[in-house]
Amino acid sequence: MTSRTAIAAAAARIAAHVRRTPLLRLAGTDLGLTFPVTLKLELLQHAGSFKPRGAFNRLLSAELPRAGVIAASGGNHGAAVAYAARALGVTAEIFVPALTPAAKVARIASYGARVVQGGETYAEALAASRERLAETGALEVHAYDHADVLAGQGTVGREFELDAPELTHVLVATGGGGLIGGIAAWYAASAAIVSVEPAGCPALHNALQAGEPVPAPVGGLAADSLGARQVGGLMFPIAARYVAASVLVPDDAIATAQQLIWDRLRLIAEPGGATALAALVCGAFVPPAGARVGVLVCGANTDPTKGAAP
Amino acid sequence: MTSRTAIAAAAARIAAHVRRTPLLRLAGTDLGLTFPVTLKLELLQHAGSFKPRGAFNRLLSAELPRAGVIAASGGNHGAAVAYAARALGVTAEIFVPALTPAAKVARIASYGARVVQGGETYAEALAASRERLAETGALEVHAYDHADVLAGQGTVGREFELDAPELTHVLVATGGGGLIGGIAAWYAASAAIVSVEPAGCPALHNALQAGEPVPAPVGGLAADSLGARQVGGLMFPIAARYVAASVLVPDDAIATAQQLIWDRLRLIAEPGGATALAALVCGAFVPPAGARVGVLVCGANTDPTKGAAP
Repeated sequence: MTSRTAIAAAAARIAAHVRRTPLLRLAGTDLGLTFPVTLKLELLQHAGSFKPRGAFNRLLSAELPRAGVIAASGGNHGAAVAYAARALGVTAEIFVPALTPAAKVARIASYGARVVQGGETYAEALAASRERLAETGALEVHAYDHADVLAGQGTVGREFELDAPELTHVLVATGGGGLIGGIAAWYAASAAIVSVEPAGCPALHNALQAGEPVPAPVGGLAADSLGARQVGGLMFPIAARYVAASVLVPDDAIATAQQLIWDRLRLIAEPGGATALAALVCGAFVPPAGARVGVLVCGANTDPTKGAAP
Repeated sequence: MTSRTAIAAAAARIAAHVRRTPLLRLAGTDLGLTFPVTLKLELLQHAGSFKPRGAFNRLLSAELPRAGVIAASGGNHGAAVAYAARALGVTAEIFVPALTPAAKVARIASYGARVVQGGETYAEALAASRERLAETGALEVHAYDHADVLAGQGTVGREFELDAPELTHVLVATGGGGLIGGIAAWYAASAAIVSVEPAGCPALHNALQAGEPVPAPVGGLAADSLGARQVGGLMFPIAARYVAASVLVPDDAIATAQQLIWDRLRLIAEPGGATALAALVCGAFVPPAGARVGVLVCGANTDPTKGAAP
C-alpha cells in the first residue's frame, strides 16, 4: 500500500517540476452552502490538472528508454505525460479515445507529443497503447494503476494537509482512482476522504459494493476525465480501508457546480474538476455539524468559449 | 496622504467581507520569461475584481442614508458596490457608460442594483450619477478618488507584502489610480511600484509627465476597466512620490497576456486584469537582475464564451 514515506519522497522528487497550488477559503454563502469550504485550486497545476504530479514521479523514478514514453488517457493524463516528457527531454506517444475533447487533444499536441485518437473509451485507448508498447519498447506511464503514479498524486493530499491542517473531510473526484488513492494513502484515517463520482461513471462506488474492482458503465458529462471502466487494483485496498464515503452525483449537479465556480469564483473547471464540489451543491454529501470541509478542484481542461458549464 | 495605519484599519474593517486572495508562484519558463514571477490572484475576489475592498471600506465607514448608494463605473466598481450594498442591506444605483460589456452589466444587475447605462465613457456616467445624487441624497461611492476607497484598495498591497515579503517590484494596472494609489501608499518606498497602462488609456503616464492630473485619451481593449479620463487628485501625490516607473503597453500585448494566462495557468483575466502582466510579456518593463517581481492580476469580468482573449 502506498505509504506516507513514498508520498513525501515523491513530493521532494517532483518539487522542481510542479506548482504548489493555492487554497481558496470560502464562506458558505459564497456557494450557497451553510458551512465554509476550503478549495485547493489544483486546476491551476501545469497542463491544467493534477496529473503532472504522478507523471513526473513516474518518469523521474524510471530508466527512460530511447523509445520514450507511452500513455493512454482520456486527455488530462496524456497532457501531463506530454508536458513531463518534454520537460525531461524524451518523446511521448499518447493514445486517447474518440470522446476526448478537442481542447485536450490540442493541448497534448502542443507539448510536442504524437497523439493517436481512436476507440470509444479510455479502456480501448489503453488496449491500443499496449499494442504500440509491445512494438517500441517505450515506457508505459499508466494513468492511475502504478505505485509511482499513486505516490505522485498523493502529493496533492500532502500539500492540502500541510496548508489546511484543520480539515476533517476532503472531497475528491474519482475516475480510475489514482488521485483519491494517493490522497487517502496520505491522510489514512486522519481526515474523512469522500469519493465523488458521476452517476454515469460509478467505478469506485460499484467496486466498494462488490468488494473488488469490477467493470462499470462509462458515460455522461465527465466521462473524458473520470470514465475509467474499472478502478485500479493498487488503489482499491486503500479505498476500501480509508474512503469514508462514496457518493454519486447527477450530471446536472456537475454543470451547476461548474457554473457556480465561474459565477462566484471566476474559475473555469472542467466537468471532472467540478465533480467533487457538485456533491456539496446537490446534497449528495452532507457533512456533519462542525466539519471543516476541503474540496479538491482538480482540472480545467475545457474550452471556455463553449460556456463555463459546457 | 493615505497612511499604512488607515490601510491596516481598512483591512480589519472589511475582513469579514472580502477574500484573502491567494498567490501563485511561477517559474519564469511558465510565462516565457527569464525570471520568476509571483502573481496575486485578486481576480478571484468577490464580484470578480479587487473593487469590493474599496467599496466595503467606503460603505462601512459612512452613515448609510435611506436613499442608499450611487456609483459611476466602467463596470467592476459598479459590480462591487452592488455586491457590497446587497451584503449591507442598502439599495444601489449604478451608472455605466455604453462601452461597459454586457457581462458586467448583467453582473451588476444580478446583485439587485438598478443599472443606468448611457454616455460614451466613465466620465459621462459619472456626470449622470451626480445629477441623480443631487435628486436623491444617496451616498456617492466614487470609483477611486475617495480616501476610504484608496485605503480599501491599499489592503491588496498589505496582503501582497504579508504573503510575499521578498518582493522588490510590484506591477499594477492603473485606471483612475485607486488601486495603485492604495498599494503605493502601503509599500511606500519598500518595493518599487510599477504602473502599467494601456497605450490607449495613459492617464497616469500623462499626469506624471505633466506634474499634475490632466485629461487623457480613453480607448482600446481595456477601456471599460482602465479608461478613466484623469487620475484622482488623492492618488496623484502618492504616485508622484512612490511610483517608481510608469509604462504603457499596446493592446496586442494585453491580448497576448490574456491568452498566456489561460494557456499556462487556466485562469480567465479580463483585459484590464492582464495589463500588468502584459508589461513583462512585451518587455515594456524589464526588471533589473535579481529582482523579485510580483504582478497583480486584478479582474476577471469578461465573457469566456467570447474567447480567453476577447
